[in-house]
Amino acid sequence: MSRIYNFNAGPAVLPLDVLETARDELVDFNGTGMSILESSHRAKAYAAIHQEAQDNLRSLMNIPDNYAILFLQGGASTQFSMVPMNLLLPGKTADYANSGSWAAKAVKEAKKVGSVNIAADCQKEIPTRVPSVSELRLTEDAAYLHITSNETISGAQWKTFPEPECPLVADMSSDILSRPVDVSKFGLIYAGAQKNLGPSGLTVVIIRKDLAEKAPENLPTMLRYATHIENDSLYNTPPCFSIYILALVTRWIKKQGVETLFRINREKAAVLYSAIDASEGWYKGTAAREFRSDMNVTFRLPTEELEAKFVAEAAKAGFAGLKGHRSVGGIRASIYNAFPAEGVTALVGFMDEFRKANS
Amino acid sequence: MSRIYNFNAGPAVLPLDVLETARDELVDFNGTGMSILESSHRAKAYAAIHQEAQDNLRSLMNIPDNYAILFLQGGASTQFSMVPMNLLLPGKTADYANSGSWAAKAVKEAKKVGSVNIAADCQKEIPTRVPSVSELRLTEDAAYLHITSNETISGAQWKTFPEPECPLVADMSSDILSRPVDVSKFGLIYAGAQKNLGPSGLTVVIIRKDLAEKAPENLPTMLRYATHIENDSLYNTPPCFSIYILALVTRWIKKQGVETLFRINREKAAVLYSAIDASEGWYKGTAAREFRSDMNVTFRLPTEELEAKFVAEAAKAGFAGLKGHRSVGGIRASIYNAFPAEGVTALVGFMDEFRKANS
Repeated sequence: MSRIYNFNAGPAVLPLDVLETARDELVDFNGTGMSILESSHRAKAYAAIHQEAQDNLRSLMNIPDNYAILFLQGGASTQFSMVPMNLLLPGKTADYANSGSWAAKAVKEAKKVGSVNIAADCQKEIPTRVPSVSELRLTEDAAYLHITSNETISGAQWKTFPEPECPLVADMSSDILSRPVDVSKFGLIYAGAQKNLGPSGLTVVIIRKDLAEKAPENLPTMLRYATHIENDSLYNTPPCFSIYILALVTRWIKKQGVETLFRINREKAAVLYSAIDASEGWYKGTAAREFRSDMNVTFRLPTEELEAKFVAEAAKAGFAGLKGHRSVGGIRASIYNAFPAEGVTALVGFMDEFRKANS
Repeated sequence: MSRIYNFNAGPAVLPLDVLETARDELVDFNGTGMSILESSHRAKAYAAIHQEAQDNLRSLMNIPDNYAILFLQGGASTQFSMVPMNLLLPGKTADYANSGSWAAKAVKEAKKVGSVNIAADCQKEIPTRVPSVSELRLTEDAAYLHITSNETISGAQWKTFPEPECPLVADMSSDILSRPVDVSKFGLIYAGAQKNLGPSGLTVVIIRKDLAEKAPENLPTMLRYATHIENDSLYNTPPCFSIYILALVTRWIKKQGVETLFRINREKAAVLYSAIDASEGWYKGTAAREFRSDMNVTFRLPTEELEAKFVAEAAKAGFAGLKGHRSVGGIRASIYNAFPAEGVTALVGFMDEFRKANS
C-alpha cells in the first residue's frame, strides 16, 4: 500500500507503528481470545490499558499527584459547557481570552452558565493571532481564566502562557503533548484526542482535584468532574478503543520524549513558514509571525481560484487534507506529532513547483 | 488463536467477520492511503461510512423519514439527562417505569430537571421483573413515558410495550436490534452501542424530529438534540471508528435479517432457561418467567461460594464474563446478537457437569 501525506486537522495522521500494532492485536488482544473492542471495561485486559494510558500521560506531562487524568466523551465542545458548569459558581465571573473560532465557541457556552468577561478579543483580526499576555484585562477574584492554547482554524498559538492568580483553564485540543507544558501552572487542561493523542471519541481532561469539589449538587451526574474523578473514568463505559489507541500513541511518544518531538515539530513548522516567506508574498501566512502555530500552518494564495487549484493538484500528488476550514478558506497544513518531516519537505517541493507554474 | 466464549454484558462479543474486516482495513482503508482512524470526519471516505451506518439502521429498523438517527457520545448515562433536558418542559410531568438499576438511574437524573411520576415501581422485587403494561399509572398529558426495554443487570425485559398517548421513550441499550420493534410507536429510542451494535464510545439516538423543536433555548449546544439533527451528527467530530464498526455490524445483521436474529436469540435464551429449569432448583432464574430477558440470562446457585467457584471454573474452561453485576451478584450470561449458539450449548454442558460435581 502507498501511504499518503495526511495534513488533516483532525482526526489526523497517526504513527504507522501504532496502526500496525492495533491491526496485529485487533482480533485477539494479548492472547485473551477476544478483541480489545470486545473486552469488558471491568476486565483485567482493559484495566491494564486504562492504567497505562493514564501512566503514560502522567509521566510524559509530569502531571502532579493532586491532578486527576480523566477520559471523557463529547469532545472539547462538551468541555465548553462542563468547565463553566463545574467551575463558574454563582456570584463569580470567568475571564475568557477570545482568540478565534474555538475560543468564541467556549465563550458562547460559558455565557449560558454565568457571568463572562472577555479579557481580550482578537477573534476577527487579520493577520490572525492570540492575545499577548500583557493585554489581558483580568477580573479580580475571577473563577478562572480560559485560553485556547492553539487555534486550529486560524493557525495562531500561545507561545507564553499567562499566569493569573485564578486557575488557568486551557483548551489544548490541537497542541497537547506537542511541546513541554508546566501542568502545575494550570487548573484544568482539556483536549479532544483526535489530533495529537489518538482517534476521535475521546476527550482528555487534566484537572486539579480540589477544583471539582465545589460544583453545584444538581448538575447531571455525567457532567460533574467529581463523578469521573471518584470513579477513575469508569462511572459508565468509557470509549475503550480510543483509550487503547491513546495508550499506543503515548507509548510511541515515550520512545522519543516530548522535548525531542517539540524540536522536530518546530523544525517542521519552520521549514514550511520559510517556504512561505521565501515566496515574496505569493504565499502569504495567515497568522502574525510571533503567534504562528507549530501545529496548523495556515496561508493564502493570490486568489481563491488558485487555492482551489492548489488543493486539487496537491490531492492528486498525494497530499491530503490541505483545504482550510470551511469557515475561513485558504490553505491549512496540519503537522501534528505524528506527521513525518519528509512530508513537509515534499510539500515545500510541491509548493515551489506550483508557484512557478502559476505565477 | 483460540477464540473464547465471551458472555460479557458490554462491551461484548462482536461478529468475527466484523473484527477480521476491521483488521484487514485498519492500516489502509479502501485504498485511501490512510486508516479510517486518521480520516477527517468531513472526508469522502468517512462520509460514506457515516451514511451507510445510518442507512443500515434505517432499513433494519424500518425507521420512518420523520425520525432522525443520531450518533452521539456519553452513553445511555448522558441520555438520562438529555431526554428530560430536551423533552420535559416547564409545567409538565414525565412518567417513568422504574424497572431496575438502569431505570432508577434515569429517574434520578430526570428528577434534577423537572417533575417525575413513577408510573410503576418494581425495582427491588425478587424475582426481578419489569412492570406489566396494565399496572402503569400514567399522568394525563405527560411529557413522555420512559421505559428501559431490557434491564441488563436484573435480566428482565419488556415483552409487550405500552402504547401511551404521550411519546414513548425507551432505553434500548441492551436489546436494540435483537428483535423487531415498531419504531413509529416510539418518540425516542436511545442505546449505548457496546452490546448489540458495536464498541463503546457511541450512543445511537432515534428521535421523532418534531420532539426536538421545543427544547429550552439556553441548553448547552452539545446537549440539544436539535444541534445534532441539524448537523447530521457532525456538529463536532463524532466517534468515527465506533460508527465505522457499527456500519460493519449492521452490514452483518443485514445478511441475516432481524427476524432471523430474533428467532436465534429466542432459541439461545430458551436453551439456557431450559437448563436452569431442568436443574430442579439448583440453578434458580433471577427473573420472573414472563419477563425473562433474551439478552441477559441471570441465575443464582445454592450459595455465593458455589457462584464464585462456578465463575472461576468457567473462566478456566473458556467461558468469560459470567459474573453477575457487582451490585447484585449471581451469574449473568449475556448472549447478544453476535454470541454464537454453540457457546450456549457448551455452557449448558458445563453447567450440568458443574452441578453434578457440586450437588
